[in-house]
Amino acid sequence: MDQARLLQLLEQVRSGALGVEDAVERMRHLPYEDLGFAKLDHHRALRHGMPEVIFGKGKSPEQILEIATRLLERSPNLLATRIDPATAVLIRERVPQAEYFPLSGAVRVWRDRTVHGKGLIGVACAGTSDIPIAEEARITAEVMGNEVDEVHDIGVAGIHRLINNRERLARARVLVVCAGMEGALPSVIGGMVSCPVIAVPTSVGYGASFHGLAALLGMLNSCASNVAVVNIDNGFGAGYVASLINRL
Amino acid sequence: MDQARLLQLLEQVRSGALGVEDAVERMRHLPYEDLGFAKLDHHRALRHGMPEVIFGKGKSPEQILEIATRLLERSPNLLATRIDPATAVLIRERVPQAEYFPLSGAVRVWRDRTVHGKGLIGVACAGTSDIPIAEEARITAEVMGNEVDEVHDIGVAGIHRLINNRERLARARVLVVCAGMEGALPSVIGGMVSCPVIAVPTSVGYGASFHGLAALLGMLNSCASNVAVVNIDNGFGAGYVASLINRL
Amino acid sequence: MDQARLLQLLEQVRSGALGVEDAVERMRHLPYEDLGFAKLDHHRALRHGMPEVIFGKGKSPEQILEIATRLLERSPNLLATRIDPATAVLIRERVPQAEYFPLSGAVRVWRDRTVHGKGLIGVACAGTSDIPIAEEARITAEVMGNEVDEVHDIGVAGIHRLINNRERLARARVLVVCAGMEGALPSVIGGMVSCPVIAVPTSVGYGASFHGLAALLGMLNSCASNVAVVNIDNGFGAGYVASLINRL
Amino acid sequence: MDQARLLQLLEQVRSGALGVEDAVERMRHLPYEDLGFAKLDHHRALRHGMPEVIFGKGKSPEQILEIATRLLERSPNLLATRIDPATAVLIRERVPQAEYFPLSGAVRVWRDRTVHGKGLIGVACAGTSDIPIAEEARITAEVMGNEVDEVHDIGVAGIHRLINNRERLARARVLVVCAGMEGALPSVIGGMVSCPVIAVPTSVGYGASFHGLAALLGMLNSCASNVAVVNIDNGFGAGYVASLINRL
Amino acid sequence: MDQARLLQLLEQVRSGALGVEDAVERMRHLPYEDLGFAKLDHHRALRHGMPEVIFGKGKSPEQILEIATRLLERSPNLLATRIDPATAVLIRERVPQAEYFPLSGAVRVWRDRTVHGKGLIGVACAGTSDIPIAEEARITAEVMGNEVDEVHDIGVAGIHRLINNRERLARARVLVVCAGMEGALPSVIGGMVSCPVIAVPTSVGYGASFHGLAALLGMLNSCASNVAVVNIDNGFGAGYVASLINRL
Amino acid sequence: MDQARLLQLLEQVRSGALGVEDAVERMRHLPYEDLGFAKLDHHRALRHGMPEVIFGKGKSPEQILEIATRLLERSPNLLATRIDPATAVLIRERVPQAEYFPLSGAVRVWRDRTVHGKGLIGVACAGTSDIPIAEEARITAEVMGNEVDEVHDIGVAGIHRLINNRERLARARVLVVCAGMEGALPSVIGGMVSCPVIAVPTSVGYGASFHGLAALLGMLNSCASNVAVVNIDNGFGAGYVASLINRL
Amino acid sequence: MDQARLLQLLEQVRSGALGVEDAVERMRHLPYEDLGFAKLDHHRALRHGMPEVIFGKGKSPEQILEIATRLLERSPNLLATRIDPATAVLIRERVPQAEYFPLSGAVRVWRDRTVHGKGLIGVACAGTSDIPIAEEARITAEVMGNEVDEVHDIGVAGIHRLINNRERLARARVLVVCAGMEGALPSVIGGMVSCPVIAVPTSVGYGASFHGLAALLGMLNSCASNVAVVNIDNGFGAGYVASLINRL
Amino acid sequence: MDQARLLQLLEQVRSGALGVEDAVERMRHLPYEDLGFAKLDHHRALRHGMPEVIFGKGKSPEQILEIATRLLERSPNLLATRIDPATAVLIRERVPQAEYFPLSGAVRVWRDRTVHGKGLIGVACAGTSDIPIAEEARITAEVMGNEVDEVHDIGVAGIHRLINNRERLARARVLVVCAGMEGALPSVIGGMVSCPVIAVPTSVGYGASFHGLAALLGMLNSCASNVAVVNIDNGFGAGYVASLINRL
Repeated sequence: MDQARLLQLLEQVRSGALGVEDAVERMRHLPYEDLGFAKLDHHRALRHGMPEVIFGKGKSPEQILEIATRLLERSPNLLATRIDPATAVLIRERVPQAEYFPLSGAVRVWRDRTVHGKGLIGVACAGTSDIPIAEEARITAEVMGNEVDEVHDIGVAGIHRLINNRERLARARVLVVCAGMEGALPSVIGGMVSCPVIAVPTSVGYGASFHGLAALLGMLNSCASNVAVVNIDNGFGAGYVASLINRL
Repeated sequence: MDQARLLQLLEQVRSGALGVEDAVERMRHLPYEDLGFAKLDHHRALRHGMPEVIFGKGKSPEQILEIATRLLERSPNLLATRIDPATAVLIRERVPQAEYFPLSGAVRVWRDRTVHGKGLIGVACAGTSDIPIAEEARITAEVMGNEVDEVHDIGVAGIHRLINNRERLARARVLVVCAGMEGALPSVIGGMVSCPVIAVPTSVGYGASFHGLAALLGMLNSCASNVAVVNIDNGFGAGYVASLINRL
Repeated sequence: MDQARLLQLLEQVRSGALGVEDAVERMRHLPYEDLGFAKLDHHRALRHGMPEVIFGKGKSPEQILEIATRLLERSPNLLATRIDPATAVLIRERVPQAEYFPLSGAVRVWRDRTVHGKGLIGVACAGTSDIPIAEEARITAEVMGNEVDEVHDIGVAGIHRLINNRERLARARVLVVCAGMEGALPSVIGGMVSCPVIAVPTSVGYGASFHGLAALLGMLNSCASNVAVVNIDNGFGAGYVASLINRL
Repeated sequence: MDQARLLQLLEQVRSGALGVEDAVERMRHLPYEDLGFAKLDHHRALRHGMPEVIFGKGKSPEQILEIATRLLERSPNLLATRIDPATAVLIRERVPQAEYFPLSGAVRVWRDRTVHGKGLIGVACAGTSDIPIAEEARITAEVMGNEVDEVHDIGVAGIHRLINNRERLARARVLVVCAGMEGALPSVIGGMVSCPVIAVPTSVGYGASFHGLAALLGMLNSCASNVAVVNIDNGFGAGYVASLINRL
Repeated sequence: MDQARLLQLLEQVRSGALGVEDAVERMRHLPYEDLGFAKLDHHRALRHGMPEVIFGKGKSPEQILEIATRLLERSPNLLATRIDPATAVLIRERVPQAEYFPLSGAVRVWRDRTVHGKGLIGVACAGTSDIPIAEEARITAEVMGNEVDEVHDIGVAGIHRLINNRERLARARVLVVCAGMEGALPSVIGGMVSCPVIAVPTSVGYGASFHGLAALLGMLNSCASNVAVVNIDNGFGAGYVASLINRL
Repeated sequence: MDQARLLQLLEQVRSGALGVEDAVERMRHLPYEDLGFAKLDHHRALRHGMPEVIFGKGKSPEQILEIATRLLERSPNLLATRIDPATAVLIRERVPQAEYFPLSGAVRVWRDRTVHGKGLIGVACAGTSDIPIAEEARITAEVMGNEVDEVHDIGVAGIHRLINNRERLARARVLVVCAGMEGALPSVIGGMVSCPVIAVPTSVGYGASFHGLAALLGMLNSCASNVAVVNIDNGFGAGYVASLINRL
Repeated sequence: MDQARLLQLLEQVRSGALGVEDAVERMRHLPYEDLGFAKLDHHRALRHGMPEVIFGKGKSPEQILEIATRLLERSPNLLATRIDPATAVLIRERVPQAEYFPLSGAVRVWRDRTVHGKGLIGVACAGTSDIPIAEEARITAEVMGNEVDEVHDIGVAGIHRLINNRERLARARVLVVCAGMEGALPSVIGGMVSCPVIAVPTSVGYGASFHGLAALLGMLNSCASNVAVVNIDNGFGAGYVASLINRL
Repeated sequence: MDQARLLQLLEQVRSGALGVEDAVERMRHLPYEDLGFAKLDHHRALRHGMPEVIFGKGKSPEQILEIATRLLERSPNLLATRIDPATAVLIRERVPQAEYFPLSGAVRVWRDRTVHGKGLIGVACAGTSDIPIAEEARITAEVMGNEVDEVHDIGVAGIHRLINNRERLARARVLVVCAGMEGALPSVIGGMVSCPVIAVPTSVGYGASFHGLAALLGMLNSCASNVAVVNIDNGFGAGYVASLINRL
């Protein structure tokens, strides 16, 4: 609750400008907008520096379009993830500035490009197949106002490639590291740098990868102490947390 | 590798002060000390601002004592986790300044109390039984140079207690949130604050909690986007990551 | 077994109106009707106040149509769940009053709208993607004779939206609460109200949600004591149990 | 939040009897008592008709004793679960009216025996080894003001025993059914009665029972629609939910 | 190894009719035929009273056709399971007597209808959706020379339907019982009859049925002692084991 | 239900020797005896040829002793499984003829040694550590009236040992095969014999044996079609099913 | 790092032919080529005797074609696995010598057929459905310079077929053994031969095979000590490890 | 079967020196010795170059002692694993040359120290807590006739320690790599060397390590192609496979 507004309200009650019942009623009226099927939270932009993000899976194209339109009325930027190509076309018809990223399925409107982050966010991934998740993390971090440096294909089985990128990784203020299969990359990078590492297990792999479970468990058991983990394939969440950290 | 030292080395090669073979040999000589059963990494203090931490489980009392002694020769502070009471007595006999925390099994030597963190680290836990894990997080954050505010017993089933602590939580620059059972606390707190939240699932619960699996999965699937997760019962890791973030 | 009918039978034996062998035979003749591939239980309408419900998955369109027709001969209302659109068209051709709900795939014939429930059943869901399951619960509760109030998109990460709906939730005599991802909503609502809460984990999510397992485990480990759980995506079951409770 | 108290507060603000800052402060002062390690919620007695219950596992004897004492100062009754015998002795020394139930480890103070439930709660269990869980359910339901009828050893492999108890089960307004191993009892009973059934999987079994997982999955997949499930071995939760239902 | 043939061989060695090397060579020549991609075991017909069965999944139509042709050259009967409709058409073009069962996907050639079983094999299933698996069991038992009685839709939630079929079930010398969801039917039937029960968990269900895992665990933990279990959806295996038992 | 007794009852009703209400009452009076904590089923001896078996785990010594005494009053033989040594001493004090088998924890009273089985039951186990489970199977089969031949330590990694025992195995009318670790023995034996094989996975192993899960899954996926499976470590169940089969 | 090249570099530094900064820069320049989305490791050919292998899943046809072209510029041979038919056509258009293996989806360019292996690599599989995985192992071993002998359809349920192939298996210097379902073949073969066995669990099976988990666990728990395991369906990895062993 | 001995046997049959029945009998007499509870395989020494190894878990001290004595009568060396200290004392009383290794629980008699391996076996472990498993691998490899070099505490989070040991690792002809927690060490080492790597997941860790499952899955999904895996904590198996490879 907004303490300033509460004080103001109570002042109005004291002054008699506002009746008691009305005050109770207003205190209940929080700043979200109701579309029926989804309650939009325009104030999140204030709290986290970012409008509500649309998670496309399980929503109809119409719902996505409707939410996007409402959000864009109040916010210069927009991020929608896991959008299929057909829905992306619909969005771009209505919002021509929207970019579509087919690897990750992200849609982004990036009109306000102010930089809020104090340093560089590094995004690294282990293999070519992890790029869609790394991309989702990068796009998220960018639209939240960060400079991002993305490095690909530095998996642990070619340790020299990784070590060659050491200084580049060390320049980051916070790192997002994506890996499937055994998910060892965050542990190794974690031991090489001194900044926080947000690890993203990806569902890349087959057989005993169990759709990313192997990588997830590996990252949770990292022997590097500077590693925290988000959900399998959750590039968005990693970019989000990294952005909040980089703003500190 | 330390670039400055490498440059210096190469200068010596150029000047002839150092032979080529010797240079190769020295470049291989990295700054860790070998005890035979454990290689101590005194430089980690420089990289992460903290000496290597002793994880007590699976080590003999003699090994723990030996490692502790060596580490304390080069570092004012020490943290050892999951230490049983008998070993704690042994350590305190040799190192009288050591504190023992029986709930979490942590041993701490805290001679250098310089504050490195730029703000407050909040540590919250859902129930009384989660306190040992919260304590481990707090002790870690303190010994790494942070001011910590610890709040207990604000589980989500008593939402008014949680909301009453909202401002206190909002004062933190980064939050550690520990919860067992359904592990919902980080999601709810995550939605209330704008800072990064490091979630720690605990093994508190029974039956279908499956030793913390339920809480772990819950936190990984958090609908709040500012949440990252560490291993079950890993209060140490959460305190560590939070400290790195708070130093930024 | 129907005690009254048994007494009557035995009276007939005593009076000699019925032979002993015949009596044994009749006692075996229970009131269900045999279609060969499915035995219909018309008496369930008496026991639970509802005709047998058709679970569409794994049944052929012909089987569904045949069962529906038979059930409607003896019961004014009908509920069929998980019906694909093509089969729904077939049903509506034969039974024009049938409604089809494409989100949840439910088909309903609701000719007898008598209210049997003593109060209001509340149905809440965490996110837009959970609406199909909430809908299935609502439809079930309605066809079983209840007034239902359905609230959407009040997930725990926006705790103010949830608290804003507190009084509305508190009006319910029993609540159905649907949530995917971390499944925390029933715990939070459970702590806010004093009525029983039937929690429905949904398969909404990805990665470590493991098709609803995370939400299921979360709800089973709820720290609110007034929560009981049904199967993943089982909106029907939740509406059913809530109806039985509301009839008490 | 208590609306009446809020209105009163605002009236005081209007009349000038209370300053604005003070009003904000009081609005934050919710009715729970803080012991440092545990926040007691004396108002839950009002909300759910029962004082907060002490879950003994993971708490020290001193903590349990302290919480029990505080709760008993404001409530005539007390329930503590999973208490080991030594702690039970401590409690009984301080509170002589306390009963101890060694099978389930429950401690109960039952000074106010007012009946709140409108009907009978039935508690059934499948085998002798499930009795401790059934007992926990019964004790909970009793202390919450219900008449309880407990039936033992009516597992599904002896279907005639079960059918012989049919009328006894049918007398209940709500049923708690506990079973380990394959956990089939709630399905069979669910099909025999018309009231809601709260199913409790128990950890009774070995091998592929996986500590109650088999029974839990069985109950969640019950083909009887009037079944809802609580956590493995959670007799307390089942008794609690049944009590809330029986009070309707 | 065939002892008679071995004795004969050795006699030939003794008599000098067969050289030593040749004898070694022949002893290695066991009676199976090699198609390159599959080794056919025509002698299994002698051992188990049934030719090798073709499991269609993962084999190409050509492979299936080739194996079927070879087997039919030496055996009057044939069973192929999990055959898709297109391949079934191919088989029926070449072997007009072949029957196709689209529910289960079985193909059967049943030219020799000699009865080998000493009694009746009962096949029961819990719900309409379990019929394909029951059918596979029946077809297998029939082609192996048994009389089969198949009963549908007698799930445990309608216990009176089940009890009504008690005598019919009791007539069987061995029972195959198929059930999905909670898989409780074999336990209940097991307690009602005195013959061996072969339980088949089916993948019928959704959510926490986890593709038949719930039913499988339930059956393995059956409290009836006369129950043994085969793989999920393995109607064939159940029919096979039941046939071997019925031949004793 | 006992049809003869039912006919007799109805005759008494017809003749007026028995009132209608009394008849209903008697029909409800099934032949089990109620000890309060356990309902004994003396008629199971008639149905399955064996008195109810006492599963010792989770029962107190007093309960076990009480049940054993009651059962022995009506049955010459008794089997109790998973009995700890102290309880075994108690039983043997009261029932001197009782044997105790410390490997498996079985207690057996075997006064009536009539042979009911038509052939030999073979019991095989893979390794020395599987012997306790094999012993439980043998003891069960013996007390149910069978001749048993037990073979040890013929695991699949020493295939020549297994083949050397081929004829011995082939003499059995039904086989019980126990194996831990990878649980491959039933598959290999299944392919060598033509009789039904009851497979018992044991919890022998470590690491990825996951307490018998590996063996259980292996046996359920056996490529030999004559294999059915019971619960992990369930030697009793295997001996029971084998006995029923051998009686056919 | 290449020690010879490092010595040479340092010599140049000593001689003044290379400046210090330049030396640091060159030391960072490791021999891999960067395509942007994938870093090619041409030196792996030197280390493992094989160029980098293309894992096709999750890569676009364009990416695969681009990597293949680059690799073939420096290496006579190429292996790509899990390639769909359409992409295979594209590759063969550009590289006419490429073979496509539709069962396993492998593409191979095999211009240099020098034999590096010292003996024979045996590849065995249990059933017809395991052939694609065995094929992947064979193709890999061949392109890495080995003679391979592939045996099909010798599953453990037909132990005589397996024993008949004993000498053929015994000729191998190292064996790759593929099996789905219960995965017992490596244990049995392991006990028959004295060479190392690389076991490949396949996803062949259904129900409780859980996509190869049953076979995987079985192989990890093999009672034969000469067995090591690779991922489910990882024929490539098995052929690779076998090749490295055969080169020793 | 031993072909030479078979030929000899058949010659005797031909010459009449041996009767036919006797020949059959002898062919059945394979060279293992039967102790009743365990069949010893003295010929395995010939096949694998090592006597049968005693796995201590689940065997009684008497059984272990008896097997050890028998094995030592025919073999100079002995290995017993997972032996508790008390049993070790018993063995050393009878066999004074026996060594006991308390970390791993191994007992070894190493009288014949002939070296059979052609090169060096390297054994590496990630952390101090993994040493017991590495020790078991080393002891096994030594008693099987290999030179072993064991390196400790080179986990991936301190990549410079690992790289410093690169040449030492590269000297090995085959490597055994043990790691718990995330189990990433074999992947990283695998990419650094060109020899086969036998990976041993250890149960070191807590929480989401799930007793070694995380490390096991990580190793099975290794992105390095030269890695094969054995069971969790199976140092013995890894040493065994490595020995067989090193003998090639």
